[in-house]
Amino acid sequence: MQFLKASDEGFETTFRRVVRDRRESDPGIGRDVSAILNEVRERGDDALVEYTMRFDDHALTDDRDWRISPETCSAAYDALDAGPRDALQLAADRIRAYHEDQLPRDRDWTDDIGMRLGARWRPVDAAGLYVPGGRAAYPSSLLMNAIPAKVAGVKRLVVTTPTRKGEANPLVLAAAHLCGIEEIWQIGGAQAIGALAYGTNRIAKVDVVTGPGNAWVAEAKRQLYGVVGIDMVAGPSEILVIADKDNDPEWIAADLLSQAEHDPTSQSILITDSLPFARQVEDHVDLQLMQLATGKTARASWEQHGMIVIVDQIEDSIPIANRLAAEHVELAVKDPQALFDLLDHAGSVFLGQHTPEAVGDYVAGPNHVLPTGRRARFASGLSVLDFMKRTSFIDASAGAMAAIGPAAVALAEAEGLPAHALSVKLRLK
Amino acid sequence: MQFLKASDEGFETTFRRVVRDRRESDPGIGRDVSAILNEVRERGDDALVEYTMRFDDHALTDDRDWRISPETCSAAYDALDAGPRDALQLAADRIRAYHEDQLPRDRDWTDDIGMRLGARWRPVDAAGLYVPGGRAAYPSSLLMNAIPAKVAGVKRLVVTTPTRKGEANPLVLAAAHLCGIEEIWQIGGAQAIGALAYGTNRIAKVDVVTGPGNAWVAEAKRQLYGVVGIDMVAGPSEILVIADKDNDPEWIAADLLSQAEHDPTSQSILITDSLPFARQVEDHVDLQLMQLATGKTARASWEQHGMIVIVDQIEDSIPIANRLAAEHVELAVKDPQALFDLLDHAGSVFLGQHTPEAVGDYVAGPNHVLPTGRRARFASGLSVLDFMKRTSFIDASAGAMAAIGPAAVALAEAEGLPAHALSVKLRLK
Repeated sequence: MQFLKASDEGFETTFRRVVRDRRESDPGIGRDVSAILNEVRERGDDALVEYTMRFDDHALTDDRDWRISPETCSAAYDALDAGPRDALQLAADRIRAYHEDQLPRDRDWTDDIGMRLGARWRPVDAAGLYVPGGRAAYPSSLLMNAIPAKVAGVKRLVVTTPTRKGEANPLVLAAAHLCGIEEIWQIGGAQAIGALAYGTNRIAKVDVVTGPGNAWVAEAKRQLYGVVGIDMVAGPSEILVIADKDNDPEWIAADLLSQAEHDPTSQSILITDSLPFARQVEDHVDLQLMQLATGKTARASWEQHGMIVIVDQIEDSIPIANRLAAEHVELAVKDPQALFDLLDHAGSVFLGQHTPEAVGDYVAGPNHVLPTGRRARFASGLSVLDFMKRTSFIDASAGAMAAIGPAAVALAEAEGLPAHALSVKLRLK
Repeated sequence: MQFLKASDEGFETTFRRVVRDRRESDPGIGRDVSAILNEVRERGDDALVEYTMRFDDHALTDDRDWRISPETCSAAYDALDAGPRDALQLAADRIRAYHEDQLPRDRDWTDDIGMRLGARWRPVDAAGLYVPGGRAAYPSSLLMNAIPAKVAGVKRLVVTTPTRKGEANPLVLAAAHLCGIEEIWQIGGAQAIGALAYGTNRIAKVDVVTGPGNAWVAEAKRQLYGVVGIDMVAGPSEILVIADKDNDPEWIAADLLSQAEHDPTSQSILITDSLPFARQVEDHVDLQLMQLATGKTARASWEQHGMIVIVDQIEDSIPIANRLAAEHVELAVKDPQALFDLLDHAGSVFLGQHTPEAVGDYVAGPNHVLPTGRRARFASGLSVLDFMKRTSFIDASAGAMAAIGPAAVALAEAEGLPAHALSVKLRLK
């Protein structure tokens, strides 16, 4: 963990290093992923069989080795205890309500020269959702990806997920049932992303691929961007907590560790205007690390990437926060709205002491798929817009063409494009 | 040019080949671009000097070799004839009006459990606009990229453009003046995209890079996606004209050639329900090709990639159009709205006989930067949203946490994330 004072002379140098370090994977992954994608494109299902045996120790022999049936998902849902089942249902309802509000409006108007103009949104035909296996198999991520796609109106939703020795995570299957997903393939890694993008004999290709994954999955999405739409280039998760001294240090410590426990490459940063408060938080982090079942991971993250920055006044946190452009920003201060107004770059913001980031991970409603690695400078969290596209349209009357056609002719001729000019001139006769 | 009947036996095979052929560049470009980007990242301005000498025969020696001053742009604008000057102004005004309508609304509400939720849009800090040199140096493209960025509220707009032997296109400079652009660098190619994304000593890095370019520029943008935001992966342009027999074949021929004249890799496709009409269009294409100053390029495009498809009824064009997902679609039919309602995938649609695509290229208002290569399946044209990002937010009261916090705890525990659970539980005491 790095402990910095913003007023120290060396701060800028150290902080710049932190901002530049995306904690991301080595470039060697690019070559491996490229080779896997080529194999899937060339050899289709045969490549999937080989990679799934090699990486997941799972033989894709019969149909039921390839796909998980809706009946299996339904049974997984029914087998849940009431606690998690009702929680999943509450989360799904609230996520749906929040995302329904994102549906874009179509526009269609006629301007003063009689030209009809507008834009129309439609869903993509098919979306593929990647669901990681192992430690990071989160039913909440399935909800966060599938529900915006459903709300957008996507007809075909395809889930791919690695199943080690064929074993799927029952909570994930239950969430799939809750989202009405009927097509689930037991394939993971870069090979799954390749199958979704290129299509194989068994798996019809999709238009958009979303969902979290390890570095191979993220790199496969990056390489296939343009062949399909993707949600974003995702990296390790991060949280920035801005807290004044009038907070419970135990709460803030838990908030920092809720990111750190995801992965050793996660990053948790506290900015505060109080050195004694910072020390109290540090102590609580150490206490909690000893008790958490995820302590080993969280400790690795906190030790390697954790940071506490002391500022003179809490407002001084904002320029730092804007440079970090963090995925999650908590504003645990007296007047969070005042700081929020000044904050330009953040994936999602949690205002006030009673809003821990974890409530946003599950049940608040906004999406938990958010830009990482400083990408909140230019990128947004997952939304229904990622599963839709906009078609602009123009409908010119003869009168409208008479009004602005000559200007189009002038520009076409100035640009040296005579067929452009001709296509307009013919209509002006 | 391929002449197909949709009812012929071989149609599906031939058409599938057309859909799959993106007319895009060879993979060798990827390696070249990767090498150039590495050089720019490692060696900054020195690499720019070398590449600009090599590719543009232009020595970046003094400051004035690097940058074009606002005064030079202003002079270029003043030197324009009234015709193109007024046309540029009209185009800018109409593009601005159309894009102002795209500004997204912020949302901020409190739900029935007392949880405040919402989303806020802000512009990116800096955007880089690539403007090609040579044949494709289009002032209209500068307007189409710069105006949405300005409307979005982007504070710093940076243009890069290659200037062969230092000569810039005066129309482009005039358009830059009209858009109020003050920072123009005389650098082109993949090296310009690298400079914008990574930054150099002279050129501060930007957050988003947009703008058309050749295959090297497009590949550089693709490789840097994630380091910066980009507008899209762009390929050769295309038009699909759906026309019944009650059209003037001369008009439709000009519309087809207005795409073909861009580049030999452009594609123009006509779908019609009348064989005699198709033959008339073909004849007019041949006539116009003999007269056009761009005839050589247009002929190469038409011969290699042009296509006419005869369908039994005009409605049969729609499934074909949806598979093509073309950048531009003209609906020159009696009831264009009826076909438009059925069309799912298109970049921009031009309704009725009096709406040639070229009017949309210049002065109608919608953006002419549109998804190519079947990407309208999942992508949209350039808009103000490409220069903005959305931050979601949550502000929970103690009461709201009491209402839904337990569900968050249940899910966190089910996912094996105890620090997530703890951060919520502490607030429920």
